Amino acid sequence: MYIRKQRLLTPGPTPLYPPALHAMMASDIHHRTEDFRKVYRSCLADLKEVMGTAHDLLMFAASGTGAMDAAVSNLFSKGDKVVVCSAGKFGERWAEIAKAYGLDATVLTAPYGDVVTPQRVEAALAQEPATKGVFVQASETSTGAMHDVEAMGRAISKTGAIFVVDAITGFGTMPLDIDGWGLDVAIGGSQKAFMIPPGLAFMSVSPKAWKLAETATLPHYYFNLKKEKKSGDAGESSWTPATSLILALAEALRYVKQLGMPHLIVNAQMLAQATRAAVQALGLELFAPGSPGSSVTAVKAPAGMDSGVIVKEFRSRFGAIIANGQGTMKGQIFRVAHLGYFDFADLFGVVAELEIILNANGHPVQYGTGVAAVEEVYAHAAVEPQTKKA
Amino acid sequence: MYIRKQRLLTPGPTPLYPPALHAMMASDIHHRTEDFRKVYRSCLADLKEVMGTAHDLLMFAASGTGAMDAAVSNLFSKGDKVVVCSAGKFGERWAEIAKAYGLDATVLTAPYGDVVTPQRVEAALAQEPATKGVFVQASETSTGAMHDVEAMGRAISKTGAIFVVDAITGFGTMPLDIDGWGLDVAIGGSQKAFMIPPGLAFMSVSPKAWKLAETATLPHYYFNLKKEKKSGDAGESSWTPATSLILALAEALRYVKQLGMPHLIVNAQMLAQATRAAVQALGLELFAPGSPGSSVTAVKAPAGMDSGVIVKEFRSRFGAIIANGQGTMKGQIFRVAHLGYFDFADLFGVVAELEIILNANGHPVQYGTGVAAVEEVYAHAAVEPQTKKA
Repeated sequence: MYIRKQRLLTPGPTPLYPPALHAMMASDIHHRTEDFRKVYRSCLADLKEVMGTAHDLLMFAASGTGAMDAAVSNLFSKGDKVVVCSAGKFGERWAEIAKAYGLDATVLTAPYGDVVTPQRVEAALAQEPATKGVFVQASETSTGAMHDVEAMGRAISKTGAIFVVDAITGFGTMPLDIDGWGLDVAIGGSQKAFMIPPGLAFMSVSPKAWKLAETATLPHYYFNLKKEKKSGDAGESSWTPATSLILALAEALRYVKQLGMPHLIVNAQMLAQATRAAVQALGLELFAPGSPGSSVTAVKAPAGMDSGVIVKEFRSRFGAIIANGQGTMKGQIFRVAHLGYFDFADLFGVVAELEIILNANGHPVQYGTGVAAVEEVYAHAAVEPQTKKA
Repeated sequence: MYIRKQRLLTPGPTPLYPPALHAMMASDIHHRTEDFRKVYRSCLADLKEVMGTAHDLLMFAASGTGAMDAAVSNLFSKGDKVVVCSAGKFGERWAEIAKAYGLDATVLTAPYGDVVTPQRVEAALAQEPATKGVFVQASETSTGAMHDVEAMGRAISKTGAIFVVDAITGFGTMPLDIDGWGLDVAIGGSQKAFMIPPGLAFMSVSPKAWKLAETATLPHYYFNLKKEKKSGDAGESSWTPATSLILALAEALRYVKQLGMPHLIVNAQMLAQATRAAVQALGLELFAPGSPGSSVTAVKAPAGMDSGVIVKEFRSRFGAIIANGQGTMKGQIFRVAHLGYFDFADLFGVVAELEIILNANGHPVQYGTGVAAVEEVYAHAAVEPQTKKA
């Protein structure tokens, strides 16, 4: 028995920003009052600001998957031809939703760890000009790979299709020019770079997407984009909002704005770069070396070692909750997250702990080797010390 | 700008145990109700259990210094001969309190970083058999040194003097057999190994101390040991208690009991041992190498470097709040704490950060060297992985 603080270090839920957590204590507020409308309006405005879009921004009391469902059920009709890019568990989710609503989906698959290229999307659109929509993950959380949504967006915007991007772990970990790159729908979730607990989903909707909504005939009720837009304009949500989470979000967005979204992204990128350097210094292999994103870094377990052992020992020895592989990758990889409220101190701990776990399980490494690699990245990043509390 | 979480890593206030922090939210409770008396009684009983004493246990809404004041003002009379052991800022505080109340104090001083030996105490008592009390710090927080209170207690118990021990950073960092070693008064504080915010002081009182109280004539009002004992027996405090802190304490004591006080002590000892190994591996000198305690490790800044620079860069670069030297030691040393809710992940971060700070300030070290020393200590401690959440 010794002290091991529970540290939530997964790619969602992510570590909580304490002032946001404390703000939830003010939940003795009624949602149909001007006090709450003020908070709700500020969240919508701040989300638009940090997401960098002039498009409409909607918020749902739902997890990210709810907004994915909403995009399909509100913007499409049964039998619509769509293209789904699938390079992991969340790509498969797009395919499942498309199937559930009876869309006619062409699924472009790439092996886990790899990505679907913009060229393949372009070719699919050329082959089927009637395509109504393209679905992708900006960042595929299950593998840590990042899609080139900029190139995809530029290609798709020349067609009649809308581009629907699951940016749930993309926001805050990679630049995303929603309006400039033609991301017609971009979806985010509260428990990712936004540093608060799960339960809220965000969605930007472009004029091109609204246009498609006009002819869409799929049934829906709770997720009603038009109704939600109208409610949001009045500073409210259509249905009862998750007030505690909205209060937390307002506080977290204040912090993200103070930090600056570009700095939040650089923060994740630095930690991802340092993680890649560390695990390679320890003789481990990256799972997605070709297109590594900065939301999470997937690492292959050493040959003959179940990654579940690593994940389990992080918890049992140090109280750290890190992620195993998902789906078919379970046992093969483990994932170190960087998105949201993560800092170098978190990473120093994770890497030192990894060194101990590897050594204790038949993969001898020199203590300190991985941590030294992280320190090198820090030193060369030449990040300026901060002068005020943040 | 990048993320640096604020981490409170000083030897008091110490890092907070989150469930204790959350328990403070239940403060809408009245202190003269059976609901609250139940909590108050459990705190007194649990404190006695974890402090390992059958003596009376009193609690005050005050900082530790309040209990130090209470010990003097309740147990002594003007002009009483006492012996004060002073080996740092807190030893000096005993001397100041003795002076404020007009005691006739013989102050046995030792240089900062050193300790007063039991032999010196014994000699002083032999020289002045009328001595009514001896005052000491179990752990001198300003230097990290630890007094041999066991040997002192055994010597003092043979005399008519009572032994008054400031164990504010001693509890939870070193074995303290209050009853067996003859610690007539032992004082603790909430913001130390008890893992909650400042504002509560604890004090055990032996039969020998109560006997002295009968003849004591110094004036006092708020700090009234007899009154507080009577109130505590009724499950209350004499004056309005700090309810939020009592609620937090009840939660923290539940955790300390679950962990086991001996394990809490071993935890601090392991972290202290690892810290000593790390800073020496980095070519730094310990400030109190002779009698190092496990509440805090004081480290000399490299020659020509102000320790304030190190403390400042911990804050500015990494958001970590560590302690500078106190009093005349300011600028000379920095202090890394271990008491209470600290774990290896905290230490991995602190040591990696120290490596970066030293390198950036003209004291080149090989990255990873100190962290590797911590990992070695962890590996050799052969601490068993924990099976249930704690």
